[in-house]
Amino acid sequence: MELQIIACASALLERYGKVVDVVRAQGYEVAAEVWSTYEGATLLTSAKETGALLTELSATLRHLRSDCAVVCADRHEVLAAAQAVAYLHLPLVHCQGGERTGSIDDKVRDAITQLADIHCVCTAQARYRVYSLTGDWEAIHQTGCPSIDVAKQARRDPLVTFGELGGSGAYVDLTQPFLVIAQHPVTTEADRAYAQMEATLEATRTWPRIVLFSGQDAGTEAMMKALRAAQAIHGNIHTIRNLPPPRFLRLVTQSAGLVGNSSAGIRECSYLGVPVVNIGTRQQGRERGPNVIDVPHEVAAIRAAVQQQAAHGPYPSSTLYGEGTAGERIADVLCNLRLRRTA
Amino acid sequence: MELQIIACASALLERYGKVVDVVRAQGYEVAAEVWSTYEGATLLTSAKETGALLTELSATLRHLRSDCAVVCADRHEVLAAAQAVAYLHLPLVHCQGGERTGSIDDKVRDAITQLADIHCVCTAQARYRVYSLTGDWEAIHQTGCPSIDVAKQARRDPLVTFGELGGSGAYVDLTQPFLVIAQHPVTTEADRAYAQMEATLEATRTWPRIVLFSGQDAGTEAMMKALRAAQAIHGNIHTIRNLPPPRFLRLVTQSAGLVGNSSAGIRECSYLGVPVVNIGTRQQGRERGPNVIDVPHEVAAIRAAVQQQAAHGPYPSSTLYGEGTAGERIADVLCNLRLRRTA
Amino acid sequence: MELQIIACASALLERYGKVVDVVRAQGYEVAAEVWSTYEGATLLTSAKETGALLTELSATLRHLRSDCAVVCADRHEVLAAAQAVAYLHLPLVHCQGGERTGSIDDKVRDAITQLADIHCVCTAQARYRVYSLTGDWEAIHQTGCPSIDVAKQARRDPLVTFGELGGSGAYVDLTQPFLVIAQHPVTTEADRAYAQMEATLEATRTWPRIVLFSGQDAGTEAMMKALRAAQAIHGNIHTIRNLPPPRFLRLVTQSAGLVGNSSAGIRECSYLGVPVVNIGTRQQGRERGPNVIDVPHEVAAIRAAVQQQAAHGPYPSSTLYGEGTAGERIADVLCNLRLRRTA
Amino acid sequence: MELQIIACASALLERYGKVVDVVRAQGYEVAAEVWSTYEGATLLTSAKETGALLTELSATLRHLRSDCAVVCADRHEVLAAAQAVAYLHLPLVHCQGGERTGSIDDKVRDAITQLADIHCVCTAQARYRVYSLTGDWEAIHQTGCPSIDVAKQARRDPLVTFGELGGSGAYVDLTQPFLVIAQHPVTTEADRAYAQMEATLEATRTWPRIVLFSGQDAGTEAMMKALRAAQAIHGNIHTIRNLPPPRFLRLVTQSAGLVGNSSAGIRECSYLGVPVVNIGTRQQGRERGPNVIDVPHEVAAIRAAVQQQAAHGPYPSSTLYGEGTAGERIADVLCNLRLRRTA
Repeated sequence: MELQIIACASALLERYGKVVDVVRAQGYEVAAEVWSTYEGATLLTSAKETGALLTELSATLRHLRSDCAVVCADRHEVLAAAQAVAYLHLPLVHCQGGERTGSIDDKVRDAITQLADIHCVCTAQARYRVYSLTGDWEAIHQTGCPSIDVAKQARRDPLVTFGELGGSGAYVDLTQPFLVIAQHPVTTEADRAYAQMEATLEATRTWPRIVLFSGQDAGTEAMMKALRAAQAIHGNIHTIRNLPPPRFLRLVTQSAGLVGNSSAGIRECSYLGVPVVNIGTRQQGRERGPNVIDVPHEVAAIRAAVQQQAAHGPYPSSTLYGEGTAGERIADVLCNLRLRRTA
Repeated sequence: MELQIIACASALLERYGKVVDVVRAQGYEVAAEVWSTYEGATLLTSAKETGALLTELSATLRHLRSDCAVVCADRHEVLAAAQAVAYLHLPLVHCQGGERTGSIDDKVRDAITQLADIHCVCTAQARYRVYSLTGDWEAIHQTGCPSIDVAKQARRDPLVTFGELGGSGAYVDLTQPFLVIAQHPVTTEADRAYAQMEATLEATRTWPRIVLFSGQDAGTEAMMKALRAAQAIHGNIHTIRNLPPPRFLRLVTQSAGLVGNSSAGIRECSYLGVPVVNIGTRQQGRERGPNVIDVPHEVAAIRAAVQQQAAHGPYPSSTLYGEGTAGERIADVLCNLRLRRTA
Repeated sequence: MELQIIACASALLERYGKVVDVVRAQGYEVAAEVWSTYEGATLLTSAKETGALLTELSATLRHLRSDCAVVCADRHEVLAAAQAVAYLHLPLVHCQGGERTGSIDDKVRDAITQLADIHCVCTAQARYRVYSLTGDWEAIHQTGCPSIDVAKQARRDPLVTFGELGGSGAYVDLTQPFLVIAQHPVTTEADRAYAQMEATLEATRTWPRIVLFSGQDAGTEAMMKALRAAQAIHGNIHTIRNLPPPRFLRLVTQSAGLVGNSSAGIRECSYLGVPVVNIGTRQQGRERGPNVIDVPHEVAAIRAAVQQQAAHGPYPSSTLYGEGTAGERIADVLCNLRLRRTA
Repeated sequence: MELQIIACASALLERYGKVVDVVRAQGYEVAAEVWSTYEGATLLTSAKETGALLTELSATLRHLRSDCAVVCADRHEVLAAAQAVAYLHLPLVHCQGGERTGSIDDKVRDAITQLADIHCVCTAQARYRVYSLTGDWEAIHQTGCPSIDVAKQARRDPLVTFGELGGSGAYVDLTQPFLVIAQHPVTTEADRAYAQMEATLEATRTWPRIVLFSGQDAGTEAMMKALRAAQAIHGNIHTIRNLPPPRFLRLVTQSAGLVGNSSAGIRECSYLGVPVVNIGTRQQGRERGPNVIDVPHEVAAIRAAVQQQAAHGPYPSSTLYGEGTAGERIADVLCNLRLRRTA
């Protein structure tokens, strides 16, 4: 079995950390790059870039003579990838299906599930949910989430240092209590993106903070504006564009807690036992461990939850999203799939 | 409520009957045309044109300031349309969801169902199936199939005359027993398209036949070759590129039976009581009335079924796919949807 | 120096003879296929497919790590190819620049010349014309036209037999006088395409004819209609979809003359000495040898010219468009280009 | 004559000042928006977005039933616009053709000239140059440059205040001597973009500076990095994303000089008499007035030229690029064009 990595969309972009370079730095060859992201990050450009990706990725899959494809999660581009694979009549393996998060991602994720042939899900509940959509129990494998594999390893890595972070803004002493903030726009609430970011930053004003630039989506521009405004005034915000995922996870284990609406708060942090204040609707419906306090986009509520989590400190590790062995298990599924095709 | 018709893909193409012209001839204004079909009709071009459609249709919806969109059925382009609507956060109404037909269409249809907000289904069974996918019973309306409305009206129209058919090839006396053949390629069996068409034409060799050009898909080119070859030899085949749907339905009521794998054999013909020989897997899993005999792509089986249906003659009308009132009911759903949005 | 062939647009399509298969049959490897042709063959689809080609071809050039690119002639897609190369800052070699043909092709050809770095022209006059556009005499090489190389070889190949032609319609005895008709739509006169084809076929009605399907462009559909109509009535027309270029050239050397508006009548036939009746504006302004009689799209004029050419018989060979050594000379130019880049 | 404004590419993007909003604020209706810019700003994305624009813009022109189109200058997207217009057989008017600037822009500009039917050029020399490319003297109108119209008006507007600038970084007292820096990446030198920006900022280190964000192109990201680095250290740089063009021109009239490689230094500043230090190859070959000193990307050379210009002060106004009446003259050309079409 030969691995072909096709790097698409934001994985190629500098302002989202050029994941493709991280992949290459780990010694993997990238078989093809498909540049398809439109500037603008509006609902319209999300739709348009999905079309551009579908058109070119299907040509790329054919050019590379791929026999099978694996896609993960629920971004709008992933449905394009799933379509390209399905329309070429190649077997499609989907990871992280069957979950609920309460936005258009649910629709997209379930549509991908419908196009997929094999499902590698993270939780027991997700397995039942995929089954209710597809009716084929044998095709669903509860492998756990690959992100937990990363979290498991990250916990053993050296501590993150401030110098390693890059970025700009205030100095934050990582040996003293600090917060990590990772908040992304909710596509159905793009018009409130500015106010939402403003509330989070106001509520955590007294804490030294490392703030991650939000992922690419409708509302991103507004959020960045709110962040720049607060950064200029508060004086204790350090912004970073990106960290390699293992270093981000290591960083949150050093923090007093993770604040925002990142899926990492729900998934990896359940395994890592990091206190999380999860704000708003973005992770709604996602299964969660005891490490999460949910609050609305209100300054007072966010502030109170942060205090409560800071007082509580670390939680015990949960295996809700896996035991850190998803990579191996997914590889097993792929190898067996291969055998079936040869037979 | 204002109607905006966006004519896309094969609806614009001469060799598929330029449906857009039929629509205009009926007095409707077409708000926009979106040309997106690639030449080639391979799996790859199907994937690529879906991307092209998604990119441009989303811009068109935005340009027209549409508030809601209605899409029908399960073609690969329809998923692109559904994505464009969903990614722009407009409410999406899907007609003809929840059915089973046994090819990649099932995946595409169910993926569209996942993206849709409101479902106008044809049969009671389809309603249950959409419910199992979405869990929202109130959003599913059993309106019946719009095609039955057309069939109901077509039955009252004047008889089709040979001169009206256009096309080329042998003369067929429509007052004597004849067959209508409508066979489309199955995208998963594109490599067998030639042999499949050849078998159908060989099995019906003794009958005067009106053969419809097959729809645009992977395998179409091969099928056309088989058709041209048989037409040159058999001497009793008349080929037509297209008929307005009501005239096609009227034509089959005049015939001894419909042979092939058209969905019209299962849907409209159940209402019209026309004897149908349904070949192969394309309509597999679709609910059917008593008017259908299913056979594989084998000459002997097809020949025997044709004889049996010719001996039987017309069947009583079935309301399995609706009572001919779907148009009104869907309009009601849309009007109520509107009210809900205003509230 | 390594050759990478990228097969694009109509070179991939069955109804234009799948040139890509001809290339592969000659033992060349095709490095990539770029499917980009839209169905419809209107002015709009010509524009749209050019954009699709530009987008994907630029990705393909990057993926193949091409160092230089060679493009030929003046089709609308070729400008897209030239843009892809120029925008990636690769050296662009353009063959067949500097000519005049009297339609939008002139604009496109000259625009390509502006983007090109090296020019391999066919005639002395073309060299002067490219110089007036670019001002760089050293970058212009009068290599002759590659099509004359093909013509030179074709003349030595065995005679074409009727069985070899494929196609459909009447039998034509190739040992008796016959005409070859190759007429393409003029994009600025797409609305007259039907009448133009009708006139040509009416004027040559008394001759057994081999008619080539016209190339893909705005107006093609209409022309095919006129052809089908005449074929049904005249009874002495044989239509063929495509011939390998050398066999087409061999065929015209066997004929009483070539009628229509194909560039082959002006270029290759000047070398081959075949009598040509060139109709209408499509080849306007192109340099021509003594073998061509020009006529408008009028039945009487066409008929008279055909009689005159038939009475005249073959012409002596002209080297206006080259001596049959263009391939070698272009290869020399490319090799020297390579040396300059390394230095 | 009805005006239809189609806003494309970077005219829609916030980080380039959303020109579309400026247009709307001036009371113009925008007939359509065509979002086509890809993220990444590499050579590859420049090529790809040109294709996307061509595909969608041709559909938009058809949808709006445009009869004629006007395009300006030489950006890579403009060639796509020109192709869309030419391939639809609409008359194309090109402004600012026939100039020389010494990069790939020359190729693109001349290619657009080849596709255009009517040319509205800025200078006498440009008129001769377009004539040498097209041979049609009557179709070339020396209207002057529309940007000089803007400059003429801007000179009469109120002074720019610091508060009006927006942006971020150091305060700059606009009543004291300061420089304006506007430097864009050169696409053929994208790998040197960082060093080039660094040199400019180092050479002007002693001056309070207003620095404009560079336009979108290959190399932009690197330039922004150099800018952020210098801004953090020098302490006297104020960066602004965008100013309405008239306010930018007013601002430079208040400054001690404009430094960088902006075309405004050559064009509008010749009329405004602003001292300019023009760096590097980007404006190479462009006709210039006496207000410009050209230097290479070297710290010492830039520094010396800035001192010389500061010592010299304002220059007398030149009408090399027009007298500020281009708008009226172009409108005249369009109206006459219209008359010709009706006749």
